Amino acid sequence: MASIDMDTVEETARKAKEASYRLQGLTQAVRNEALQEIAAALQDRADEIVRANEADIDEAERAGLAKALVKRLRYDRSKMRESVASLQALVRQEDPIGKVVSRTELDEGLVLERVTCPIGVIGVIFESRPDALVQISSLCLKSGNAVILKGGSEARRTNEALTKVIVKAVTDLDERFSSAVQLLSTREEIDRLLALDQYLDLIIPRGSNQLVRFIKEHTKIPVLGHADGICHIYVDEAADLEMAMRVCYDAKVQYPAVCNAMETLLVHEGVAVPFIPAIANRLRHAGVELRGDEGSRALAEMKEATEEDWRTEYNDLVLSVRTVPSLEEAIAHINRYGSHHTDAIITNDERAARRFMEEVDSSSVMWNCSTRFADGYRYGLGAEVGISTNKTHARGPVGLEGLTIYKYRLMGSGHVVADYVGEDARPFIHRKVL
Amino acid sequence: MASIDMDTVEETARKAKEASYRLQGLTQAVRNEALQEIAAALQDRADEIVRANEADIDEAERAGLAKALVKRLRYDRSKMRESVASLQALVRQEDPIGKVVSRTELDEGLVLERVTCPIGVIGVIFESRPDALVQISSLCLKSGNAVILKGGSEARRTNEALTKVIVKAVTDLDERFSSAVQLLSTREEIDRLLALDQYLDLIIPRGSNQLVRFIKEHTKIPVLGHADGICHIYVDEAADLEMAMRVCYDAKVQYPAVCNAMETLLVHEGVAVPFIPAIANRLRHAGVELRGDEGSRALAEMKEATEEDWRTEYNDLVLSVRTVPSLEEAIAHINRYGSHHTDAIITNDERAARRFMEEVDSSSVMWNCSTRFADGYRYGLGAEVGISTNKTHARGPVGLEGLTIYKYRLMGSGHVVADYVGEDARPFIHRKVL
Repeated sequence: MASIDMDTVEETARKAKEASYRLQGLTQAVRNEALQEIAAALQDRADEIVRANEADIDEAERAGLAKALVKRLRYDRSKMRESVASLQALVRQEDPIGKVVSRTELDEGLVLERVTCPIGVIGVIFESRPDALVQISSLCLKSGNAVILKGGSEARRTNEALTKVIVKAVTDLDERFSSAVQLLSTREEIDRLLALDQYLDLIIPRGSNQLVRFIKEHTKIPVLGHADGICHIYVDEAADLEMAMRVCYDAKVQYPAVCNAMETLLVHEGVAVPFIPAIANRLRHAGVELRGDEGSRALAEMKEATEEDWRTEYNDLVLSVRTVPSLEEAIAHINRYGSHHTDAIITNDERAARRFMEEVDSSSVMWNCSTRFADGYRYGLGAEVGISTNKTHARGPVGLEGLTIYKYRLMGSGHVVADYVGEDARPFIHRKVL
Repeated sequence: MASIDMDTVEETARKAKEASYRLQGLTQAVRNEALQEIAAALQDRADEIVRANEADIDEAERAGLAKALVKRLRYDRSKMRESVASLQALVRQEDPIGKVVSRTELDEGLVLERVTCPIGVIGVIFESRPDALVQISSLCLKSGNAVILKGGSEARRTNEALTKVIVKAVTDLDERFSSAVQLLSTREEIDRLLALDQYLDLIIPRGSNQLVRFIKEHTKIPVLGHADGICHIYVDEAADLEMAMRVCYDAKVQYPAVCNAMETLLVHEGVAVPFIPAIANRLRHAGVELRGDEGSRALAEMKEATEEDWRTEYNDLVLSVRTVPSLEEAIAHINRYGSHHTDAIITNDERAARRFMEEVDSSSVMWNCSTRFADGYRYGLGAEVGISTNKTHARGPVGLEGLTIYKYRLMGSGHVVADYVGEDARPFIHRKVL
């Protein structure tokens, strides 16, 4: 049986690749129509989707799944309305495909264009939240990519119902969409999928740090995402301390369970008094547990921070605190212990801020504002594909653009290279037109 | 001993990472000055470099290395002049770092910028050609990246001499360049290097298909490059056949040993007579061996092409020829057997050309010109880092831009996310300024 399953994953991937070639040729109008058809189909077939979801929830509750997980599993009419609204917003978003981003006349009648195009086949592996299935499929279709989905087993019925509705909606519209959206169902299939780098061009994991780390460890396919969000705020010697209080409170307390919340607070020794006692007091009132280095513990009551604390993403009301003698030490700490996600400086010294933003090697660097702003919606990117800590392709909050690449288009009228080499070589003109 | 060597590679990589953080803060002026210092030092210390190269060549000749390889190994005063000229041209090239590519006002006084920055640590693994060492180091320094080099053992003395000169030139200028350029020397170190994805951000292989394939197979670090260049020309039903003759001859014969030379010719059945007999005749006169499908062999004398031929990069005066019944079949053949490098259509039918360029999934797609144009210099990119068939980050001929990524910079005056959520949420304005 195992070998049959394995063949099936390969077959799925091969079909996705073929679909991706067909999708390259679709116009914006057809891709947007597909999104509208999905929105209509979700509403038409809401009953069966909600029933499938209720069956998943029943089973999850009987199996004693944690309340928070059951809540994330829910896909009711209100969630569906959100999906439909997202689809409609996505239709209105600018087409990421077919944009000529540069045009150069290499010689008379020989014109080079660089044009955006789909990446090809995207593998999406997500946990719980069935709304992620609708969102990521529609992002892939908008950008002309084929997608292979693998959701959590606890949402199996919901994911199958949603995929069925999406597939029927788009293939009824245009048969070129066949195999553009496919769903895998077993855990074992993930391992197989991660090995198929001849078919898959990009993997997007949506879920826990553990999931992302597992995927990054087990594939050679590029992975768009981040495992950790160990974000810092550095309160500089020249900080407005009232501002620092407000921003640190927001970054830690406003929503501690997310990747862009502050996990470590660095404070310049010159302002440790009065800042550390004051912020410690305020955070303790909000229920935050503090863990500090020696310098911090001398100024406020807190547990001792271990080396491990500097490398920990708590995702909770816990904060590590360290005093530093200089901006350089703050930058070195962040580059050494951080996750290159989002880090902020609070200061009125522009030179210190510029240096911090240059030398901190993170996807978002901030000056006098909360790390919690690092988010595709807040950045105005429209739909968010994910947040990436990669150093190639896409970094930080990633919009639709992260699902695209470009190709070069060269158009001549019989031009040959032989004319441009040797003694009587014609020179190139390389005139930038766009 | 082995364990000591392994520690050394890790130490090298760790130092490169630290250097990369320092390099983030260097101005364009300092980076350009470093290139000028290298150019001056190469000229000053030409004698010792040339002597080291002569020793390498002596040894290679004694060891009976093939003449072509010995020739590639040579780094004499003429090669050095080329290196110096490239360095000077690179100094004049636009700075790829610190460019603000977009600016959005998220709200009053809260400004988001996307700015280009270095990737970090680049590993470069190359064979023979010592000039590649100078070129790639200078590209990395220009773009603010640290580089770890591994050259071929046959060029060991030359590579060591060049690295010594480069390292001294840049660290004498500014000690922040220390560990920015490092050289590994043994084959075993490559395996170790390929495993250090916590330190290396990108690998660039320069050499044979085998080298590139080996590296892609053995690392999770992103690899910029291409293993194969199986390029096609499709002569459409609506082709100007005289133009097709000229372009096909150029793409096959002008320089057959390179990745952008044509390996397979596809001919629409409707023009197979008279095109195939004519081109076969012309190519045979140039010494090209032809291997054809049944349709082609019916029209001109040639060997039978096997399934393997469609997947082969000859890099030589050999060409496979196939007749196809339609544009669709030509596109399907290219997407199936090609290497997604460079493919061209010859036609006077604009619709056919547009469809070909959209649906052929290759880094360069061309219309009525030779595949041999796919090259960074010809495309006007300035210095060429390599040609990539990747579907993420950089595709096609890659200039300095391929050694950069971006980060987001968010600047506020105490802005917190709490103000933008809940009942009285402030709206974002998301005003695009740039």
